Amino acid sequence: MKAIEIAMIVKGILDGNPDDEIISVAKIEFAEKNQISFISNPLYEKFYYTTKAGALLVSNDFTVKDKRSDVNLIKVKDPYLAFLNVIELFEENDDLAFSGISDNSVIGNNCDISEDVYISDFVKIGQGCKIGSGTKIHANSTIEPFVEIGSDCIIYPNVVIYKGCKFGNNVIIHSHTVIGSDGFGQLRHDDGSFQKIPQKGIVVIEDDVEIGSNCSIDRATIGETRICKGVKLDNQIQIGHNVIIGENTVIVAQVGVAGSTKIGKRCMIGGQSGIVGHLEICDDVIIGASVGVSKSITKPGLYTGYRAKPSKENLTQEVYIKKIPELEEKIKILQKKLDKKENKLIK
Amino acid sequence: MKAIEIAMIVKGILDGNPDDEIISVAKIEFAEKNQISFISNPLYEKFYYTTKAGALLVSNDFTVKDKRSDVNLIKVKDPYLAFLNVIELFEENDDLAFSGISDNSVIGNNCDISEDVYISDFVKIGQGCKIGSGTKIHANSTIEPFVEIGSDCIIYPNVVIYKGCKFGNNVIIHSHTVIGSDGFGQLRHDDGSFQKIPQKGIVVIEDDVEIGSNCSIDRATIGETRICKGVKLDNQIQIGHNVIIGENTVIVAQVGVAGSTKIGKRCMIGGQSGIVGHLEICDDVIIGASVGVSKSITKPGLYTGYRAKPSKENLTQEVYIKKIPELEEKIKILQKKLDKKENKLIK
Amino acid sequence: MKAIEIAMIVKGILDGNPDDEIISVAKIEFAEKNQISFISNPLYEKFYYTTKAGALLVSNDFTVKDKRSDVNLIKVKDPYLAFLNVIELFEENDDLAFSGISDNSVIGNNCDISEDVYISDFVKIGQGCKIGSGTKIHANSTIEPFVEIGSDCIIYPNVVIYKGCKFGNNVIIHSHTVIGSDGFGQLRHDDGSFQKIPQKGIVVIEDDVEIGSNCSIDRATIGETRICKGVKLDNQIQIGHNVIIGENTVIVAQVGVAGSTKIGKRCMIGGQSGIVGHLEICDDVIIGASVGVSKSITKPGLYTGYRAKPSKENLTQEVYIKKIPELEEKIKILQKKLDKKENKLIK
Repeated sequence: MKAIEIAMIVKGILDGNPDDEIISVAKIEFAEKNQISFISNPLYEKFYYTTKAGALLVSNDFTVKDKRSDVNLIKVKDPYLAFLNVIELFEENDDLAFSGISDNSVIGNNCDISEDVYISDFVKIGQGCKIGSGTKIHANSTIEPFVEIGSDCIIYPNVVIYKGCKFGNNVIIHSHTVIGSDGFGQLRHDDGSFQKIPQKGIVVIEDDVEIGSNCSIDRATIGETRICKGVKLDNQIQIGHNVIIGENTVIVAQVGVAGSTKIGKRCMIGGQSGIVGHLEICDDVIIGASVGVSKSITKPGLYTGYRAKPSKENLTQEVYIKKIPELEEKIKILQKKLDKKENKLIK
Repeated sequence: MKAIEIAMIVKGILDGNPDDEIISVAKIEFAEKNQISFISNPLYEKFYYTTKAGALLVSNDFTVKDKRSDVNLIKVKDPYLAFLNVIELFEENDDLAFSGISDNSVIGNNCDISEDVYISDFVKIGQGCKIGSGTKIHANSTIEPFVEIGSDCIIYPNVVIYKGCKFGNNVIIHSHTVIGSDGFGQLRHDDGSFQKIPQKGIVVIEDDVEIGSNCSIDRATIGETRICKGVKLDNQIQIGHNVIIGENTVIVAQVGVAGSTKIGKRCMIGGQSGIVGHLEICDDVIIGASVGVSKSITKPGLYTGYRAKPSKENLTQEVYIKKIPELEEKIKILQKKLDKKENKLIK
Repeated sequence: MKAIEIAMIVKGILDGNPDDEIISVAKIEFAEKNQISFISNPLYEKFYYTTKAGALLVSNDFTVKDKRSDVNLIKVKDPYLAFLNVIELFEENDDLAFSGISDNSVIGNNCDISEDVYISDFVKIGQGCKIGSGTKIHANSTIEPFVEIGSDCIIYPNVVIYKGCKFGNNVIIHSHTVIGSDGFGQLRHDDGSFQKIPQKGIVVIEDDVEIGSNCSIDRATIGETRICKGVKLDNQIQIGHNVIIGENTVIVAQVGVAGSTKIGKRCMIGGQSGIVGHLEICDDVIIGASVGVSKSITKPGLYTGYRAKPSKENLTQEVYIKKIPELEEKIKILQKKLDKKENKLIK
């Protein structure tokens, strides 16, 4: 693709040779002559002078001391966003490889599968499932009976969806994630043994949700566990039964949310944090990494610490602890003074 | 099913219309006219006045101010336990769908598979395995050679059981759990490189154990890793080689137990906690959430904190840190007083 | 195998009956007459007097008070290392069971599969893959298009390798691990919704790497995520996009490493620790268990604590907090003294 063509697609202004050929994308440090990269962060501006890239997406106000004639600049409003679009331009089209229903899959009775669905090898689909148009289900995945999946979803290899769960459209589920495994409910008897509490609810995944690999989203005891529209979950996340995650909330890897907790909209939860059960986290809360949340949060803001507190309080506590040796020193001085005075008086 | 029939099954007393038809269960907030729910927690008694449920399981001493004629009450000793039984009443019978051995499965030589075992599609079972009566193995699971599984077990889809592991009866394993992967043993050479220590033991899972999704239970180096009778594990739990988990112990999601640690009976371990290797935790220990246990525990009780301590000690420490600004203030006052006095003396 | 034969193989000196027959290995506490065990740790020397083992590997300087005639001693430089070799001696040969390509597998077009590769049942291999000599791919694994795997690798059951990832030789991947799932990149729009950032890089796994079960190693956004030669990862580890893990680094279970972080050579990272993104950890760093690393580390040594610090600083802080009640007491005494004196002066 010519440099001028790329500039036109991203609605940018080309400063360079319109006919230079670009064939793929790369990071600025590693880019070669016929590759395009970008500068978004000012810290990367230094690479302008050393990169071998044939073209760079830069911001409209990008200026340099020594202009290079061998690097095409394409000036745009947001170079990173433009770069994302350029990545898509150069993406090979996999669609042909992923169409049709494999003879090596098993599909149960009374399923309603749209015409252009892709079902790969060794996929087992139980009875009574519905699968919408354009959805792709990759190899070795298991879809239990009565599951409903919307259109244009991607179910990566070796995913398991338990009975009766419901998906909206444009949902992406990565490998080894389980949707709808039993919630953890055990009733303790007097002799210390447990009776399993039946888990009869489902999981509902709304439109535009992406869930990473090796996640566990448990089904509700009764009713639903619900992952609302636009939620993005990283890998190895545990969502307990009857949890609700509000729209456009983002959760980083290895977080655990215990049963019946309700998380608001547009929250961001850092990696390895844990939220105990039966809490409410309001909209627009930011929780740091490795934070333990054991009380409901009713005000937006940043919460951090081993036991979640508003971030300022944690900083104060740190400052306090650091003061101890200083306090100790002051007490010593006071004691000395006082002793001295006593001695004087005694003398 | 009629209200009076349900009352008879749960051995309760019906206060209402015997012939009212109930067709399913629901949470009290969402229940409709032909559904049954329950009130166990006094906090939920308020819903009595607003629920649309056709019937409610309540405790024998349940009383209300304004009696509703449209809600059947079924009085029982333990409403929650009764509700669990009612859930089972309305459960559809899946058994017909899950019987027989699929032609799309592969079973190795010299296996001893009971007659009524269910083996689903794309299940691979290695040579020399034994599988007991009534056990169900769902799609895409892999059972390596010489595994023994007892009767009435449920192996959910996409489970892997490595070579030679042994299961008792009534064991449930959820999807993407691995039983018997290699323990983490690496011998460091002087040049910094590692030699793998062969992991030749097995995992033994006793009767009535349930293990959630995405767990890893490592095989022993030599001998066994053992999960004793009645243990319940939530999702995403890591159990190292040669660990022993005592009877009726419960472990919440994302906990890690390092190699050779022995946990007693009836312990409860909160989510995201970690226990280092080669420790002993005695019977009846309760460990909070996100607790790091780095020493053996020899007394029952509640342990909490970033480094596990008896819960009271942690609270004390919190109180101490909060005292620092107060101490600082007191020191300032002392200094002032002392300075004043000195000035007086000087004057 | 005769005791003398084992002694010769491990280059040890036999003190006992050369013809005694040994048929397998065991832990010293459980060993039977025809089994061999070892004593490496002095704490285990007491078992010499009670073990039923027919032979023991001991160190060259091992001495006992009361010599037993029924236990063969094989004296070697490093008894544990010798024992590892003996374990291998008695290992049954599985190779015959694991050869050939199953008719129940699906292999895409234009693959280059070496002659002695083992591909088990229900394995799906996409187009354009290369698989080297002696590699074994176990049941229900999915290898997406254009993946390259070297020689003598073991891919355990139900592993998923996404498109285009590259493996060296002697790599071991345990069940339910995902190599190459999408990195977690989401661009937030002003309305709070997210746009997925395409993840177009790959994962490179160098020679002699072992990765445990249920791990997630994300592909790079652009370029590579790289696990260098000799790295050993335990179970349930999360490695973000564009991370580099240096040679011979060891990471214990449930650790998370966020995107673009670079970890040096020969590091050891304890279980459940987390490292935030875009950091550099230098060579030879040891990080404890459950440690949160939020800043780059530039000096080798041991780092511990909820927020990683050199281990000494954490110990100091603990000591400080414990001093608070003592300081409080001292302040009280000072106050009393001062009050007394004031009273005296007043009187």
